[in-house]
Amino acid sequence: MQDKKVGLADTMFARYDMASIARQELEDSGVTVERYTVPGFKDLPVASKKLIEEHGCDTVIAMGMAGSADVDKTCAHEASQGLIQAELDTNTHIIEVFVYENEAKDPEGLEEIFQDRVKKHARNALKLLRGKTELTINAGEGKRQGHSDAGPIDEE
Amino acid sequence: MQDKKVGLADTMFARYDMASIARQELEDSGVTVERYTVPGFKDLPVASKKLIEEHGCDTVIAMGMAGSADVDKTCAHEASQGLIQAELDTNTHIIEVFVYENEAKDPEGLEEIFQDRVKKHARNALKLLRGKTELTINAGEGKRQGHSDAGPIDEE
Amino acid sequence: MQDKKVGLADTMFARYDMASIARQELEDSGVTVERYTVPGFKDLPVASKKLIEEHGCDTVIAMGMAGSADVDKTCAHEASQGLIQAELDTNTHIIEVFVYENEAKDPEGLEEIFQDRVKKHARNALKLLRGKTELTINAGEGKRQGHSDAGPIDEE
Amino acid sequence: MQDKKVGLADTMFARYDMASIARQELEDSGVTVERYTVPGFKDLPVASKKLIEEHGCDTVIAMGMAGSADVDKTCAHEASQGLIQAELDTNTHIIEVFVYENEAKDPEGLEEIFQDRVKKHARNALKLLRGKTELTINAGEGKRQGHSDAGPIDEE
Amino acid sequence: MQDKKVGLADTMFARYDMASIARQELEDSGVTVERYTVPGFKDLPVASKKLIEEHGCDTVIAMGMAGSADVDKTCAHEASQGLIQAELDTNTHIIEVFVYENEAKDPEGLEEIFQDRVKKHARNALKLLRGKTELTINAGEGKRQGHSDAGPIDEE
Repeated sequence: MQDKKVGLADTMFARYDMASIARQELEDSGVTVERYTVPGFKDLPVASKKLIEEHGCDTVIAMGMAGSADVDKTCAHEASQGLIQAELDTNTHIIEVFVYENEAKDPEGLEEIFQDRVKKHARNALKLLRGKTELTINAGEGKRQGHSDAGPIDEE
Repeated sequence: MQDKKVGLADTMFARYDMASIARQELEDSGVTVERYTVPGFKDLPVASKKLIEEHGCDTVIAMGMAGSADVDKTCAHEASQGLIQAELDTNTHIIEVFVYENEAKDPEGLEEIFQDRVKKHARNALKLLRGKTELTINAGEGKRQGHSDAGPIDEE
Repeated sequence: MQDKKVGLADTMFARYDMASIARQELEDSGVTVERYTVPGFKDLPVASKKLIEEHGCDTVIAMGMAGSADVDKTCAHEASQGLIQAELDTNTHIIEVFVYENEAKDPEGLEEIFQDRVKKHARNALKLLRGKTELTINAGEGKRQGHSDAGPIDEE
Repeated sequence: MQDKKVGLADTMFARYDMASIARQELEDSGVTVERYTVPGFKDLPVASKKLIEEHGCDTVIAMGMAGSADVDKTCAHEASQGLIQAELDTNTHIIEVFVYENEAKDPEGLEEIFQDRVKKHARNALKLLRGKTELTINAGEGKRQGHSDAGPIDEE
Repeated sequence: MQDKKVGLADTMFARYDMASIARQELEDSGVTVERYTVPGFKDLPVASKKLIEEHGCDTVIAMGMAGSADVDKTCAHEASQGLIQAELDTNTHIIEVFVYENEAKDPEGLEEIFQDRVKKHARNALKLLRGKTELTINAGEGKRQGHSDAGPIDEE
């Protein structure tokens, strides 16, 4: 993966340094990392597109945190739509890693989610770079990021 | 249909191996199958577009499962909008096969829905490949996938 | 109108053969009709765009029925957004004719809505083909399709 | 403004002849007017884009009325999204003038809103044609169309 | 920053002269400022795109105020989607600065939000012009505009 470049788009709004977790997780893979920090997650779609089109990234991990108010959910929705549009504009995967502030009851719980979700999605991003069936071994397995896996329904 | 290629885009998030049902259903038709597995269904639009533009697929079946929380419904909505956009970008059908985790009360009921919906939509995808009036015989017939047909209103 | 082609995009999901009403209504006008049947109304945007770009249609009537669950309304919303996008992509009118299953209390009431809405919109489609002020005589008149006209407010 | 062309896109669905108010308001400015009447406001985005791209309009006033049901609000939302997309596609202002049927208690109140909102927005459209700072004198002044101005907060 | 141009897109609807705060904040940086005033925030996406494509702006600060009714929130949502689309169309940052009328209880509180949010975002816009890691020092720090910072979760 020496010849691959991974973009890390992150925000000042988030209450945890998500990009540093991602950078650490990617370290051993040999990929080059390009970081792009924006104010909030609505700024992530254009930052991700610029990482791909102007900075030569082969994929982007777009990281943000949503507050717990209704307006925050609307913002997250708009950011997600923009990220999907940016993917379609570039034919490139942008892995969205959003954490909702009300997913955990306390900072410790939230930190665990940040760590787990970013790490797993960093690994997913690498696998998608390797090829379109690299994740097929886990297809339909009820895999989760930030929480424990749900598992396949027939093992319930 | 020997010269046709069908893309199967599926997810690790889903709790059932939907792509394998589709593959089996397509087997006798002679079409070639290309699989693309992504983390969750928000990754399906770009995967579907890549299957069409980079892997030569003539149509794609995009399969995913939505959880039962409100945020899962929003994600499904975003994925659907992206899939429609990808269709318009490519003038190619992408058959969306989404299952909602709360559509059935137990794993057995859910499995039936997965099986029925994927199989029927695999057949629909093949028919659309054959021509734009291949499904006309069933137009207005209240056809359903994953549940029994509603039927036409004048037979109620 | 001999040289004009009208696309009829319809679905297997609908519980009434909407395209046949439209075909009948268009019969005397001399236009050529091209039909395209898809599984559900989310498949209508790309079908409509293909009717315009690949089958030479000058306008399209896109017909579908929405179920009464919340998810059905979301699907109708996504389909509508896609149809508007397809119109902007092609600079061509696509007349959306959607019927909501809960608009009437019984099959008879629903049938009346199907008949009235499709017929009136088929006529609207023809008039839009003739020119941009063909409908101006009815501008601001509170015209409805599927229900009786609301009329202008100053006649209330 | 003799060399400028203003498009008036209006609907049969609306219960008031909005385009005629606009035409009257524009009369003394010397601009040419092109009218385009469509069935409902979901048809306005493509009509507005055609007025710009096929009929040479320098700006468009897109006028419609929304009913009071939930589905009407969704339709207005879709129309608004389409109008914004059409603006981005053409780099041209399309002034949206929508009236909600439940904004007033009686036809008289509604008529006042129709008259005031269309007239003010017709003047806004003309000013935007003259240049990007023609409205700057009123920036931050809490200007409203269809209702009395809210005014700046420091004059409250 | 002498060679950079910053667009200021603002509205007559807002009840505070947001663009003047921004202009003041940008003064010492040496950038050139181009202002564009529109009626309401739905007009901001195309104004921002024109500032970039027709007036040579390197970035835009798009400022608006949302009323407290439900329809105002929908309008803000549509404006946000349009701004993100304009960013993707131009590969250029458009910093959205929206204030909701119900964010504060009285005009004084609202004025504080207007001042703080516009100033901080003007500084953010300048930093993004300087480079993609200029804001990285604050990544994950829970930075807010218009309210006091939330801070990182591990300092809670």
